[in-house]
Amino acid sequence: MDIERTSKGVCVDGFSAGGLKEGRYGVALIVAETPCKAAAVYTTNTMKASPVVLTAGKTSKGMLQAIIANSGNANACVKGGMEDAKKMCEMAGKMLGINPSMVAVASTGIIGRKIDLGAIEKVALKVSKEMSNAPEASTRAARAIMTTDTKEKSVSFKYKGIEVGGICKGSGMISPKMATMLCFITTDADLDQKTLQDCLTNSVEDSFNMLVIDGCMSTNDMVLLLSSGKVGCNKQDFQILLNHLTKELTRLMALDGEGATKYIEVEVSGAKDKETARKAVRAIISSDLVKTAVHGENPNWGRIAGAMGSVIEYDFEKIDLHYQSGKEKAAVVLKGVMRDLDPARKILKSKELRIIVNLNSGKESAVGYGCDLSCEYIRINAEYN
Amino acid sequence: MDIERTSKGVCVDGFSAGGLKEGRYGVALIVAETPCKAAAVYTTNTMKASPVVLTAGKTSKGMLQAIIANSGNANACVKGGMEDAKKMCEMAGKMLGINPSMVAVASTGIIGRKIDLGAIEKVALKVSKEMSNAPEASTRAARAIMTTDTKEKSVSFKYKGIEVGGICKGSGMISPKMATMLCFITTDADLDQKTLQDCLTNSVEDSFNMLVIDGCMSTNDMVLLLSSGKVGCNKQDFQILLNHLTKELTRLMALDGEGATKYIEVEVSGAKDKETARKAVRAIISSDLVKTAVHGENPNWGRIAGAMGSVIEYDFEKIDLHYQSGKEKAAVVLKGVMRDLDPARKILKSKELRIIVNLNSGKESAVGYGCDLSCEYIRINAEYN
Repeated sequence: MDIERTSKGVCVDGFSAGGLKEGRYGVALIVAETPCKAAAVYTTNTMKASPVVLTAGKTSKGMLQAIIANSGNANACVKGGMEDAKKMCEMAGKMLGINPSMVAVASTGIIGRKIDLGAIEKVALKVSKEMSNAPEASTRAARAIMTTDTKEKSVSFKYKGIEVGGICKGSGMISPKMATMLCFITTDADLDQKTLQDCLTNSVEDSFNMLVIDGCMSTNDMVLLLSSGKVGCNKQDFQILLNHLTKELTRLMALDGEGATKYIEVEVSGAKDKETARKAVRAIISSDLVKTAVHGENPNWGRIAGAMGSVIEYDFEKIDLHYQSGKEKAAVVLKGVMRDLDPARKILKSKELRIIVNLNSGKESAVGYGCDLSCEYIRINAEYN
Repeated sequence: MDIERTSKGVCVDGFSAGGLKEGRYGVALIVAETPCKAAAVYTTNTMKASPVVLTAGKTSKGMLQAIIANSGNANACVKGGMEDAKKMCEMAGKMLGINPSMVAVASTGIIGRKIDLGAIEKVALKVSKEMSNAPEASTRAARAIMTTDTKEKSVSFKYKGIEVGGICKGSGMISPKMATMLCFITTDADLDQKTLQDCLTNSVEDSFNMLVIDGCMSTNDMVLLLSSGKVGCNKQDFQILLNHLTKELTRLMALDGEGATKYIEVEVSGAKDKETARKAVRAIISSDLVKTAVHGENPNWGRIAGAMGSVIEYDFEKIDLHYQSGKEKAAVVLKGVMRDLDPARKILKSKELRIIVNLNSGKESAVGYGCDLSCEYIRINAEYN
């Protein structure tokens, strides 16, 4: 049975959403008809923003019914941040008629500045009056949490009768080995809380945790999964569906990386273990020199070899290295020997490409997601405040 | 007694040098009157270039008399690289009348391409005929090993009768926790090989290893120290002098970082141990977001807090954060509370500045060196081949 794309976004059966951006602040609300089992993954940055700390305390108990998220301010590294995060939950609880203890809060935007709760309340009030289960409501919520993103990210899929939908934001300050952005996922799958958490943790490991835009780790990353429990299902099916969703959201974030002109996938195979493959992928996709070479459509594969050597041991004379775009594939290095680079130069002109390294030393592999590094990234981040 | 700057570069008493760039390749030669005790530090990249492997084998025996170094090709990740590296030592030995086993070789430039020994020999022959002990010869050698560097780096100092001189190159593919460039140091200090190695290792730790341009680790890094042993001295004095030299070379590389428009020093103090301070410094100076903020003269200090949180634990409510340029110093955060940012904005207009973080949790500190991230970095590296 195939996985089917639907148009609902987070507005799968049992959930409503809304969102609006006015001036500096955007607010998204997501609410379920009934309390939901919840799972979550958070940033591993030690300097966690107050909304992360507050929401993590709630998800540790396993149940949530609503989410309030704002863009424009991260509510991180600021005195009184915890009180402000609590007030946002109370605010949303009151507007949606839900106990504040069942409301998660997430924030994204500049770090180290006091959040303007008055402005947020004004926007949230408007949003709360137009909550809807229609697909457009998910799009509005996705748009409200954008910062430097240029496109909203709202997707959903159906598989064996179960549905899962998600919105996310994330464009810069994105690094691997942690959940790296705000992402809210809803489902009707009836699974216990521990199973939901297992599935989410697994899914994040090969999707969001393999995404790098600039190697900078956020203080505010959060992935929340809420389940209405309306439809019976088994763990394996849900894992397949959830992986499909998180990979698609990851791909959308890589495509929309700050200043990105090219989407890059990196695959390392033939590794002796999974962690070696992941490390190599992350080193390649994180390298400013690899990213600028791709930006310049320049098959400077020596930088790929150097990046791998900074984190793993490997035998250069065993490796194969290809560039691929769609069905076009060019060998650049075969068993350590460089080939004619012209076919690679042609592939590098594509907007979406894959760098494929086979270490030929084992059976494990990993894939990572990222983008090139352009002047636009610098312009965005030189000016962002 | 003060450390005095001299003009000799590597041409301290007992050493001659020469250098020339023609077309794609530059060659530098350095030769001592007599065999020298030698110390060295190399890249920790597992994918070491052939010249690194070959020279490391020689320095492990502790004696050298000459160095041949080329720019234009790294002689890394290429079959037959070791034979080519050996041939370069033979070539230089023959031209300079020295046993090839006493010749070190270093290469820098593009990775993964066959080196053109014929072209190198032609340039080397011209260089070998104009070897000189004059300061200009050190400058020529420094210029010959430049790749994307815009200025040659040749300095020397005198202290208590001993002299030390050095040339280096390095502008991109520079990351901390290893020696990060080519650097050749000469001295007349009479110390045993173990003491020379101890002093070099110590010195590199707080200088080159605290330099970050782009967080990318090279396959070819090498720091060589040759001593003629002409002047008696004690270890402590030599360490002071060597530290002075390596810090100055580090500063010159940071100033000349690829595309740099601003020189940045980062100081983290009040750490519970030295490694915590170093980690925090490296995270800040490596962050593309901190670098772009400085480029934009934007006091977005939240990125500094976020970068530190990605590698160390700290109490945000204890920290002080200042920007400094010359005698001007602006508090941005005091005990976790943000101050007026206007004085910091003024300091950020400077070409050279220092970011100072006091964790107020201990007595250890560290300093790192780097630069901002500009579009010019991307232009250079998109086109480099």
